[in-house]
Amino acid sequence: MKSIVISQSEGQNKLEMDEQPRPEANENDLLIKVKMAAVNRTDILIKETNTSYGSNPIPGVEVAGTVVEADSDHSFAVGDRVMGLVNRGGYAEYAVMPADRAMKIPESLSFKEGAAIPEVFLTAYQTLFWIGKLQKNDTVLIHAGASGVGTAAIQLAKQLTGAKIIVTAGTERKLQFCSELGADVTINYKKQPFDKAVLEATDNQGADLILDFIGASYWDKNLTSIKTDGRWVLIGVMGGSKLENMNLMSLMSKRIQLTGTMLTPRSDAYKAELSREFAEEVLPYLEQGSIHPVLDNTFLIDDIHEAHQHMKENKNIGKIILDVGSEAN
Amino acid sequence: MKSIVISQSEGQNKLEMDEQPRPEANENDLLIKVKMAAVNRTDILIKETNTSYGSNPIPGVEVAGTVVEADSDHSFAVGDRVMGLVNRGGYAEYAVMPADRAMKIPESLSFKEGAAIPEVFLTAYQTLFWIGKLQKNDTVLIHAGASGVGTAAIQLAKQLTGAKIIVTAGTERKLQFCSELGADVTINYKKQPFDKAVLEATDNQGADLILDFIGASYWDKNLTSIKTDGRWVLIGVMGGSKLENMNLMSLMSKRIQLTGTMLTPRSDAYKAELSREFAEEVLPYLEQGSIHPVLDNTFLIDDIHEAHQHMKENKNIGKIILDVGSEAN
Repeated sequence: MKSIVISQSEGQNKLEMDEQPRPEANENDLLIKVKMAAVNRTDILIKETNTSYGSNPIPGVEVAGTVVEADSDHSFAVGDRVMGLVNRGGYAEYAVMPADRAMKIPESLSFKEGAAIPEVFLTAYQTLFWIGKLQKNDTVLIHAGASGVGTAAIQLAKQLTGAKIIVTAGTERKLQFCSELGADVTINYKKQPFDKAVLEATDNQGADLILDFIGASYWDKNLTSIKTDGRWVLIGVMGGSKLENMNLMSLMSKRIQLTGTMLTPRSDAYKAELSREFAEEVLPYLEQGSIHPVLDNTFLIDDIHEAHQHMKENKNIGKIILDVGSEAN
Repeated sequence: MKSIVISQSEGQNKLEMDEQPRPEANENDLLIKVKMAAVNRTDILIKETNTSYGSNPIPGVEVAGTVVEADSDHSFAVGDRVMGLVNRGGYAEYAVMPADRAMKIPESLSFKEGAAIPEVFLTAYQTLFWIGKLQKNDTVLIHAGASGVGTAAIQLAKQLTGAKIIVTAGTERKLQFCSELGADVTINYKKQPFDKAVLEATDNQGADLILDFIGASYWDKNLTSIKTDGRWVLIGVMGGSKLENMNLMSLMSKRIQLTGTMLTPRSDAYKAELSREFAEEVLPYLEQGSIHPVLDNTFLIDDIHEAHQHMKENKNIGKIILDVGSEAN
């Protein structure tokens, strides 16, 4: 089958098109004919480090497609339109997915939209609710508001809670988009120190919850922006991971709960339970259209380098899609 | 009334005996004739910084004594033997305490034992259960096992859960004492790197929960000692608070929940609810003697400097008591 693999040449990791054997589904798996996949930062990291994929050279952690071999329990049927996380191998014509984490794509949504949902919406759901314990009267500060997880988190917080939503982003276009999704306060971090703006917007109390994709470069300002007894979920380190002067007393005096998390390395059981709860709680909103996946550009799988480059340059608003096997392809 | 106050002379903060007016109880307070108080690290910090006590110059955050003026709801009666946290003013003949956080001293316990309970047992209860979510099959790593909070935490973990308890301390005498309280594994951190010993004791998995009073000097070893998805509660920084090289990725890759906490600055409502739950869940054990306060030396209130010095030198096993108004005094 047609697929993208990570290969090494001259000490550099590269992505290249390659013919690979079709993967084999175990009895609890679905074999899926992939229509659309999506690009994630974890794919870029995996390409650069070439460590986390074991023996499977194909990157990609989420797909949308049709079932071609059902699981032995027949929880899905051949022909079903499904979306979900895969442990590896999303950038290919066929992929296997444990059936207990697969989700039916709502009829109102296309494969492209389906591929834009799993990774960012599950991450946003997990960090807002399972880890961040967002409550209706809370204030949540969402950095990188126009990113994939950011746009998902704004909508989930808006529709599932009455929380006040503060976002940061670096262009007026992105901030405008965040407002349309439901952000109550938008801050252009390039034009003003975001911590001052957060304090102004919260009566000097700070945010109850911070979703932090940035890490080191925002550390001090996040400390200022968080409320006493606040929760701070560290999901990414786009602004670096090394702190040269960290004072533990600051965590004690504000009684901060700081939780690091990553979705991809978690267990199959965790991904299944998260997908199950998400499908129950959020799919109805996606079906009705009150929550919607945010699509940036779609690239043909042959143009994988351009797709990764687009993400690296932070040009996207929402998800970058890979067209793997649509009819048009 | 006789009391200890913080005063300044020649730029130095000092503790000295002073005559102060008897405090006035509001309608929801008890006025208590103090029999015994106890020394806490927060008292030393407050003496040194002289910041956190507002207008009240008398340190001390816990007392045991008898009610001399009841609250307007009569939840306690004059003459009742009570113990609990005070917001300030424990080092004095009389102290006021909000009635909703006062606890009756079990009949089997003396005032001295009563004074040894509130701060360390409430802190241990809060950090193990409210913040640390200790479960019966967990492993908990308790540093400074022979300290006040350490000895309380060992007993609470042992009696209220089936958790495996690993402690660190710096002398064989202290470790022996921790074993007698219920510790399953004891580690002399001066004789071996404690992280290796923790990994050996946990099949290389690490501890689910760490109670950390130490901070910076233990940072790297705690990172090695904690399990993936572990909880890490930062209660003290006896080993320094400044980290010069902190890598946020380490929190993400192990998906660590790191929570800083302090009990003294928390709200009255929090202290009331914590005391209420503790009284319900733990006082029966204290009454029966299956959990007991651990007493180190008792000092007369006139010898307050010796008492503080004793704590600063980490000579104590368990609580240092101040005899404020026993009959013998």
